[in-house]
Amino acid sequence: MSSTHIFKVEMTCEGCSGAVERVLNRLKGQGVENVAISLPDQKVTVTGTLSADQLLEVIKKTGKKTLYEGVQ
Amino acid sequence: MSSTHIFKVEMTCEGCSGAVERVLNRLKGQGVENVAISLPDQKVTVTGTLSADQLLEVIKKTGKKTLYEGVQ
Repeated sequence: MSSTHIFKVEMTCEGCSGAVERVLNRLKGQGVENVAISLPDQKVTVTGTLSADQLLEVIKKTGKKTLYEGVQ
Repeated sequence: MSSTHIFKVEMTCEGCSGAVERVLNRLKGQGVENVAISLPDQKVTVTGTLSADQLLEVIKKTGKKTLYEGVQ
């Protein structure tokens, strides 16, 4: 079953948000269905079958400070 | 034996270079000895026992476009 998880990610430019987007989009078809990123809100919204912990691990590998905010 | 590898990494702000630095510094004592990053030169220099391929994989997980430039 799919869920939509929200993360707060420290992103300061479009290079930052683009990097996070790229990493998550690589998982399309492997547990990630949709990715939405708001640079002004520092918000990353991911829909898919991966757990919050799995997604957190992937996003943290970008080196960006990341907090889990909850399910939408 | 340690080597010093140079990578060209697309970084557009200090958030970008900080993220790459953070990811590599997490490997200090696990194959990475020294990390030097130049944002203006888009250059990441890593000294340690990890191979160029291993380092490339780590840096690519940041989502930044990365090219291997060679050994220093």
